[in-house]
Amino acid sequence: MTSDAERLARATLSLVAEPGDLRCLGLTRELGGLRFLEFLREQPDLRPELTAASGRLAAVRPERVLEAAARRGIRFVVPGDEEWPASLDDLAGAGALHARGEVPVGLWVRGPLRLDQLGSPVAVVGSRSSTAYGDHIASAMAAVLGAAGSTVVSGAAHGVDYAAHRGAVSADAPTVAVLACGVDRAYPAAHQQMLDHLAEHHAVVSEAPPGAAPFRIRFLARNRIIAALTRGTVVVEAAVRSGALNTASWADRLHRTVMGVPGPVSSAASAGVHELIRVGGAALVTSGEDVLELLGAAGEHLVDVPRAPSRPRDRLSVRARQVLDAVPVSAPAPTASVAVVAGLGADEVERLLDALAVDGHVERLPSGWRLGEMARSTIDP
Amino acid sequence: MTSDAERLARATLSLVAEPGDLRCLGLTRELGGLRFLEFLREQPDLRPELTAASGRLAAVRPERVLEAAARRGIRFVVPGDEEWPASLDDLAGAGALHARGEVPVGLWVRGPLRLDQLGSPVAVVGSRSSTAYGDHIASAMAAVLGAAGSTVVSGAAHGVDYAAHRGAVSADAPTVAVLACGVDRAYPAAHQQMLDHLAEHHAVVSEAPPGAAPFRIRFLARNRIIAALTRGTVVVEAAVRSGALNTASWADRLHRTVMGVPGPVSSAASAGVHELIRVGGAALVTSGEDVLELLGAAGEHLVDVPRAPSRPRDRLSVRARQVLDAVPVSAPAPTASVAVVAGLGADEVERLLDALAVDGHVERLPSGWRLGEMARSTIDP
Repeated sequence: MTSDAERLARATLSLVAEPGDLRCLGLTRELGGLRFLEFLREQPDLRPELTAASGRLAAVRPERVLEAAARRGIRFVVPGDEEWPASLDDLAGAGALHARGEVPVGLWVRGPLRLDQLGSPVAVVGSRSSTAYGDHIASAMAAVLGAAGSTVVSGAAHGVDYAAHRGAVSADAPTVAVLACGVDRAYPAAHQQMLDHLAEHHAVVSEAPPGAAPFRIRFLARNRIIAALTRGTVVVEAAVRSGALNTASWADRLHRTVMGVPGPVSSAASAGVHELIRVGGAALVTSGEDVLELLGAAGEHLVDVPRAPSRPRDRLSVRARQVLDAVPVSAPAPTASVAVVAGLGADEVERLLDALAVDGHVERLPSGWRLGEMARSTIDP
Repeated sequence: MTSDAERLARATLSLVAEPGDLRCLGLTRELGGLRFLEFLREQPDLRPELTAASGRLAAVRPERVLEAAARRGIRFVVPGDEEWPASLDDLAGAGALHARGEVPVGLWVRGPLRLDQLGSPVAVVGSRSSTAYGDHIASAMAAVLGAAGSTVVSGAAHGVDYAAHRGAVSADAPTVAVLACGVDRAYPAAHQQMLDHLAEHHAVVSEAPPGAAPFRIRFLARNRIIAALTRGTVVVEAAVRSGALNTASWADRLHRTVMGVPGPVSSAASAGVHELIRVGGAALVTSGEDVLELLGAAGEHLVDVPRAPSRPRDRLSVRARQVLDAVPVSAPAPTASVAVVAGLGADEVERLLDALAVDGHVERLPSGWRLGEMARSTIDP
């Protein structure tokens, strides 16, 4: 168990260090919150990149923030807590290429859902400027994932994120919103009601402390939490330069499964996803079932191979099909000619043609046999 | 050069053996047309699977067919001819799994385009029941391929095939139609005009002799010719059970590049393509440029990485961006607070904020700074 002193130290660090601050978070992970905080207090000028954090130490009141948070039902989960999601530890050392990274010093959580008990969590993310198509697919996919026991994790943003949370909720399934601002704030403001609902029944999570405003760097830092919390990330729609691709890139870096939902190639909202599949090696998924198959254990959640409705000819015997295949599409041919093409005797062919005519596969005209209307419509095999 | 006797023998075999008949075509390839024909004449009953072909020998008039064909501008191209496309020889021995297969005994060709001079041929195929989306993409893709010097090969069917030929023609580029019926017939009849145009300026090709009607087995056999003639096959739209997937499967078997154009996952017309990419390992392509990149030599036809239009913030200095990233989205913050988040001195931050305000990146309110309208609209990175 984490000591109260360590938790307080980490709350302090959460207040002075920006989300994803490589140096502060890395040192906290290596030294522990207490020792790093001591270092920050005693040797504030040793490393220039730490001066911003140490400069803020005097102004923050971590006890007061923790108390106020607790009163509002917000808990601060840190490494060592039972609730700490072990998958976040994969962020250790990660970040050099992204400017933001590392294991967060802790997560502020609002809502009854425990982060250590997310069943098979999957990130469903995408464009804020999604199309009706993207919203529909995200909702439907999240509902299927939720119904199968997966927890849908997303960013509560406009567009695909919102649709994903909504889909999970519609399936009465758990869903987690990871915010770039404090969990007591609603950004975007239009999602106040949904965020309140998630906080009451599910979980709203942030690395940034209560009250923190949404800055650009916090969105970038937030994306890595979504990727790290989950076993795979599905990008539903994304233009070629979209935050959702940043989440996908984190998922890839963390060896999670990266998936993309295709769309019309003429849709700018799908261009980033197509690039992700084409060049980035992401898996193409068309449904929640496809996602379950990819993320499940081998042999679990296997997707039925899609089948067209069976056709009448599928029920014919091999000989009857052989004859049917030898009947012309439009210009009628006599029985003898059908027999030659089919490579069968004329008597047998005559008998089979009569039977085929009964079911409408072929029709007899004065000049011979040709395919019936039904068979003509499916001639191109 | 092929002797007249061998050509006549192969024309005879083309009249008595069905396209893709594994036994007849395989023996012709192994023994040569003359020797196999002799065998067929002298020992018609030795193998039961040859009786259909030998039974037709008496009824055919190959000299007459060749003469009539020549009068109508139809030539019969056989292995050994200069015009014989060597890529068809890859069909040798291929077919066990498909019931149809093997190298054709010859190809009947109508039109000025020589089959040995197709520049970088690509198959563009797809559903007959295509959507407006599929038709549009097929045409646009064929036009790009054609303009880059590729020959578009397709099957002249309704839907995607037709759109592909039309796109190539619109780019004044060569295009080849491979038919399941004789090259003197129009199937579907509605494509008479297009087929006449292709026969006058490009090439219409069939393994089946002039006059042959379209049977189902001839469509299946035809698909392997399309795959074998080309360096890769693009499937634009295909339901889960479509002849276009049969062509793709031939392309795969012949070690050609198999490509698929994605579409809405809600469109049945794209379901087969998505399956081809998801499970079949086909490459996802979104445009003719993507196809050229895949089929070109290494380093040739590289596709520009799609880029979103650059944003105003891209042109800022690193320090200015650091300050901009620290400005709240909605609730204003004083300069000192921005400076703390940015980790920079208050004086420098004040100066940079003033400069950022001039360009509208930030705005100054009585209570402090927040992002300008423009920057707010692109906050989600």
